[in-house]
Amino acid sequence: MTASQNRQVWLRERPNGIPQAEDFGIRSTDIPKIAEGQFLIRNEFLSADPAMRGWIADKSNYWPRIEVGDTMRAFSAGTVMESMHGDYRVGDKVMGIFGWQDYAAVDGSSVQRRITETELPVSTALGVLGLNGLTAYFALLELGQPKANETIVVSTAAGAVGSCVGQIAKIKGCRTIGIAGGPEKVELCRGEFGYDVAIDYRAGDLDARIADACPNGIDVYFDNTAGEISDSVLKNLAVGARVVICGFASIASWNPAPLGPRVERHLLVKRARMQGFLIFDYVDRYPEGLRALTEWVKAGLIHYREDILEGIEQAPGSIAGLYRGENLGKRLIRIASEEPWE
Amino acid sequence: MTASQNRQVWLRERPNGIPQAEDFGIRSTDIPKIAEGQFLIRNEFLSADPAMRGWIADKSNYWPRIEVGDTMRAFSAGTVMESMHGDYRVGDKVMGIFGWQDYAAVDGSSVQRRITETELPVSTALGVLGLNGLTAYFALLELGQPKANETIVVSTAAGAVGSCVGQIAKIKGCRTIGIAGGPEKVELCRGEFGYDVAIDYRAGDLDARIADACPNGIDVYFDNTAGEISDSVLKNLAVGARVVICGFASIASWNPAPLGPRVERHLLVKRARMQGFLIFDYVDRYPEGLRALTEWVKAGLIHYREDILEGIEQAPGSIAGLYRGENLGKRLIRIASEEPWE
Repeated sequence: MTASQNRQVWLRERPNGIPQAEDFGIRSTDIPKIAEGQFLIRNEFLSADPAMRGWIADKSNYWPRIEVGDTMRAFSAGTVMESMHGDYRVGDKVMGIFGWQDYAAVDGSSVQRRITETELPVSTALGVLGLNGLTAYFALLELGQPKANETIVVSTAAGAVGSCVGQIAKIKGCRTIGIAGGPEKVELCRGEFGYDVAIDYRAGDLDARIADACPNGIDVYFDNTAGEISDSVLKNLAVGARVVICGFASIASWNPAPLGPRVERHLLVKRARMQGFLIFDYVDRYPEGLRALTEWVKAGLIHYREDILEGIEQAPGSIAGLYRGENLGKRLIRIASEEPWE
Repeated sequence: MTASQNRQVWLRERPNGIPQAEDFGIRSTDIPKIAEGQFLIRNEFLSADPAMRGWIADKSNYWPRIEVGDTMRAFSAGTVMESMHGDYRVGDKVMGIFGWQDYAAVDGSSVQRRITETELPVSTALGVLGLNGLTAYFALLELGQPKANETIVVSTAAGAVGSCVGQIAKIKGCRTIGIAGGPEKVELCRGEFGYDVAIDYRAGDLDARIADACPNGIDVYFDNTAGEISDSVLKNLAVGARVVICGFASIASWNPAPLGPRVERHLLVKRARMQGFLIFDYVDRYPEGLRALTEWVKAGLIHYREDILEGIEQAPGSIAGLYRGENLGKRLIRIASEEPWE
């Protein structure tokens, strides 16, 4: 083979808050050699996700914290180039936790799923047919439990998860209200993602506009932001409401936890439920979710948008951009090995 | 009949925060006359409950706000003295929303339940065999869903609801941790109510003491306080935890909602659930709950304490006393008509 180098985006300094471009470095190392039971991935697309802020800031129940010097943990999609693993063959396409780098030598445990929908772009495996779509599917249906004619509000409604939530809720017969930032995203919510109402949270007076849009209260709130948007939404819950806690894009740091109005009275008076969601609890059910999502995408019932940055040099600044809300759709970084593999 | 007057405790002024004795007046009126379909109750015991603060402060989904000039809404227990209602006979004992007064002319819709456990004191119908016990039973079992060997934390652990929750959880095989204020209540938790661990929240360093008492995390948090106690408890949830929001004894006013650390990260990382509870959703199942509670009380598996104030003059100050935590057990006011009924 003609070996190029393996470029890696690594954590140079631990940020206090949202990771900025200058918190990362890019280094070149040798392409890793695989051992028995491993295979070598060449990444095509790297994912940029809001959750990466948390992976750097804190340990979680499922992963250790990313340490200074580590290659940035990330989801990516690529092709198996060499294999000493019985289940993965050269040419297989896979999505998994392969890091912000050109190449990764991994075993099967890093793989989230195989990519077999050859009629759809590989990039979808990181978005609408990846963890974003699966999160929307399981979090909405299992925790939100939407019923026909109910009212659902989605925050980051034009985002990779939110846009999918709104469309699945529509498929289930709900009235959908999307909250997004700025006129461009609001227009995307209405035109592309079929929300019945789209609200620009930056345009002010959010309490009143949510109340106007939800005269019978909110049955399901799918929350990707926390913060002031949630403060307004929670004032308008219906009796028996379900609040799905899926992310907190408005929170720059949980060290310490930011203050907000206490929620207990809303929950008690409305006998409402707030519940946290993590997609990794549903690994065993990915095939079910992917079947449904693939069918809906092919049928044109779910539209998706991608925001593709070109080149690994774009990775370091990509998280901060998400928190500024600059992307329209799922943010990905397309990388290409400079030389062809032989 | 020999008519005495009907003494009524009425709202003289709307308090900003916790209602104090001087916010109420006591007036004497004629004993009401019953109409067709009504019956006359003579109250024996009046209940004092933390929730009465909220009934004065705000309208809720289930009741209008109490207005200045109104007789104070309250649960009470008494005897039917006259009846023009087919289902209620003179001498029947009932518990319901009869107000802080000697007499009430009501129809069946005010009744919460008949009191038929003649082998137990009538007062229990307002506490362990009333809405407090029923709240503990349904909120814990339906929302908390405790399983054997799980760890449960109860706030206001020595209170009318909390003490019952702790003992039901023990019956279900849980490890029980009670949080209460002051050494006397902590001792009651350990000695009378059988908690495995009792923590005095006034003794400081609550985070560390909860963490010490719950090395495997908290599976169920039964919350009657909100506020700083909850802030400490939520840091120690186990994966899959259930948080039952039953009351907020630490909150003097929700106008505006007090600030506290946002809870979303706890819920997401632990895939935990917070859910509000209101006993009135379970009216149809009271008989089931009362059967279980009565059996457990008779079998000595559930102990209860009462804090009985003597005379209607004690009613106006009784709510503020609850919020100061001065009661040990269910707070009741015993009232007596001055003349015998003939």
